[in-house]
Amino acid sequence: MSSFDGLWADLAAVGRHPGTGGYRRYAWNDADLTLREWFTGAATARGMDVERDRNGNLWAWWLPSGWSGDPVDAVVTGSHLDSVPDGGAFDGPLGVVSSFAAVDALRAEGVRPRRPLGVVAFVDEEGARFGVACTGSQLSTGALDPDRARGLRDADGRTLAEVLTGTGIDPAGLGRDETLASRVGLFVELHVEQGRALDRLGAPVAVASSIWPHGRWRLSFTGEANHAGATRLADRHDPMLPYAATVAAARERAAQHGAVATFGKVAVAPNGANAIASAVIATLDARAPSGAVLDALTADLFADAARHAAAEGTAVEIGSESLSPIVEFPDGPRDRIRAVLGPDLPVLPTAAGHDAGVLAPEVPTAMLFVRNPTGVSHSPHEHAERDDCLAGVDALTAVLRDGIAP
Amino acid sequence: MSSFDGLWADLAAVGRHPGTGGYRRYAWNDADLTLREWFTGAATARGMDVERDRNGNLWAWWLPSGWSGDPVDAVVTGSHLDSVPDGGAFDGPLGVVSSFAAVDALRAEGVRPRRPLGVVAFVDEEGARFGVACTGSQLSTGALDPDRARGLRDADGRTLAEVLTGTGIDPAGLGRDETLASRVGLFVELHVEQGRALDRLGAPVAVASSIWPHGRWRLSFTGEANHAGATRLADRHDPMLPYAATVAAARERAAQHGAVATFGKVAVAPNGANAIASAVIATLDARAPSGAVLDALTADLFADAARHAAAEGTAVEIGSESLSPIVEFPDGPRDRIRAVLGPDLPVLPTAAGHDAGVLAPEVPTAMLFVRNPTGVSHSPHEHAERDDCLAGVDALTAVLRDGIAP
Repeated sequence: MSSFDGLWADLAAVGRHPGTGGYRRYAWNDADLTLREWFTGAATARGMDVERDRNGNLWAWWLPSGWSGDPVDAVVTGSHLDSVPDGGAFDGPLGVVSSFAAVDALRAEGVRPRRPLGVVAFVDEEGARFGVACTGSQLSTGALDPDRARGLRDADGRTLAEVLTGTGIDPAGLGRDETLASRVGLFVELHVEQGRALDRLGAPVAVASSIWPHGRWRLSFTGEANHAGATRLADRHDPMLPYAATVAAARERAAQHGAVATFGKVAVAPNGANAIASAVIATLDARAPSGAVLDALTADLFADAARHAAAEGTAVEIGSESLSPIVEFPDGPRDRIRAVLGPDLPVLPTAAGHDAGVLAPEVPTAMLFVRNPTGVSHSPHEHAERDDCLAGVDALTAVLRDGIAP
Repeated sequence: MSSFDGLWADLAAVGRHPGTGGYRRYAWNDADLTLREWFTGAATARGMDVERDRNGNLWAWWLPSGWSGDPVDAVVTGSHLDSVPDGGAFDGPLGVVSSFAAVDALRAEGVRPRRPLGVVAFVDEEGARFGVACTGSQLSTGALDPDRARGLRDADGRTLAEVLTGTGIDPAGLGRDETLASRVGLFVELHVEQGRALDRLGAPVAVASSIWPHGRWRLSFTGEANHAGATRLADRHDPMLPYAATVAAARERAAQHGAVATFGKVAVAPNGANAIASAVIATLDARAPSGAVLDALTADLFADAARHAAAEGTAVEIGSESLSPIVEFPDGPRDRIRAVLGPDLPVLPTAAGHDAGVLAPEVPTAMLFVRNPTGVSHSPHEHAERDDCLAGVDALTAVLRDGIAP
């Protein structure tokens, strides 16, 4: 009997919006703090020591008998606890819950680890509050500059530094964790699939091959606010028009390049029903099978945007918000996982970013995916069947067993 | 020497946002309350009695010598004091300031009124806070149901009834003013032009012929929130796509029909950079030379919207928010104004809504427009030259003189 169901039930209500049914677990908000307390409680109940690193990530340790000092060359598993706005229950928490359930399964088997085993919850993977994804893991690897991180602001204008101070974390401590590479010998992140590949293959679990390169850009279309009734069409400089044309172009360019491109976040000024907009600020999320394809897609699309803006007598400025290169997970851990779980285990690329992708340049890293029958994610309708979640726990248990007690 | 400059200078700083340079004077907010105090002070300084009607509109009265009882068959001028978000200085306040300046000019001439002369400031013409335009005048004519008005909510969720109670107005008193038709014998509203017709004609002042019919509709495009990276294009139901296609269609349909159509207000859910939207809620503002043309335009456009929504596997619901029929200002007052101001006075239609249009079915009504050299309105860049404003005061003075001391 897996401990999965009980652990999973603990989280069901935390940060769930009763109107939408989606989760609103944003870095350091009340729901997130509750989940962090839950993590500490779950670890403590298992006799695991909990450590909060300088960047706010939580680590729970199961150490070999007689181990003294800091963990070294550990097998670490885990994921994140935060969500996108009105996100689903599985994206993130499934990996953390499955980690504790796997620890319980190993304990029940009587396994005695020869290497430290860690369960980690990385902070602010989704970036829903401060706009930058994978803040916790990126700070630890040094990919995110701590000065930039401290100055990030949420929608209320509060900086991350202020928010951290309010939770008792010294923002001066943010930054690269020099012990990461020696502490983590293998990182395995289990995550719900965010697509339908496993559903099409008829398999419950897969191992990852790579993460597509991924960028975010801010497109600021600016025109001239004016009266929505009295301004002749010929006199308009309406930034909504080039924005709309660029949305259509993004879909076409993505299809041409075998990539994806999305406008999901928009702000309009002054946003009045009877005023032509003065500005439309939109965020493009684009991902492609390779960096070269992503470059070609965005070059085409930004030329489209500039042409559409000029045609309306408006302007567009384009700024890069983030750019993550392709992550090719290393062969070694994946080959070992396939040896443990069997040669039929599907190997899948993903276009979703993960903390595992951030860690991959620093430590040996692998990912397991659990089937998502509809492929829907970042939505209240995200789902995974219980049997598939239990299959994920079994797979993770086998991989960890192989890692800590070979 | 006109008193215009001093009156105008009094208002310059009230509700002006230092960042945008636009005005944020919304019904019953601090800036609006300051302007209402200013109105009362300006009237009192001129020995005019100020009355606040049950709907919150302010009336200042200059009564004939020896008049007793309520005003009857008055000549009334005025406009509104509130603004759109980040609106200009002239839309509304120019009419109120010019009214007081005209009163001062008539006094300086020694005119003694034979009929009551009123200056009015209608409340909440723009509808920026509660979403319904011309609330004050519409309540007074009965065009707006008082139950609906009381239940209108602002962005913070406060109802108009709550806000009125907080300002000392009994919301139970809202509703049709049965004395309006007997009290007002003529209403003349002076307003900055919201277009460039006078600029093209090389004239400073015009009289209105008609107001185009005008409607607002809420288009709710709904799809399926999903992961912006991991969801294949073929699996998407992204409501941003049909919204964008409908924006483009609105411009094309407006051009075909010789009308205007604008999407200036948009809300996206969940509005996350890495989530395909679940919903895009947009407001269409459309106006046309006739009701038949407006009907044809919207029928075409709503069919376009439905087709685009279906093509993406999404849905669209369309609800009417408001619909104002064409206003043809009556011949009598306009002919009289042309007799006073000269036969060269331009006669112009407008596509902008006004309190005068709301009053027109109830009382004899006319409008004067003052040249706007760029045509820009509902924007911080809205402008009128001082000389043209003074020409407007002179024209209004002549029209009022003719009305009260024929």
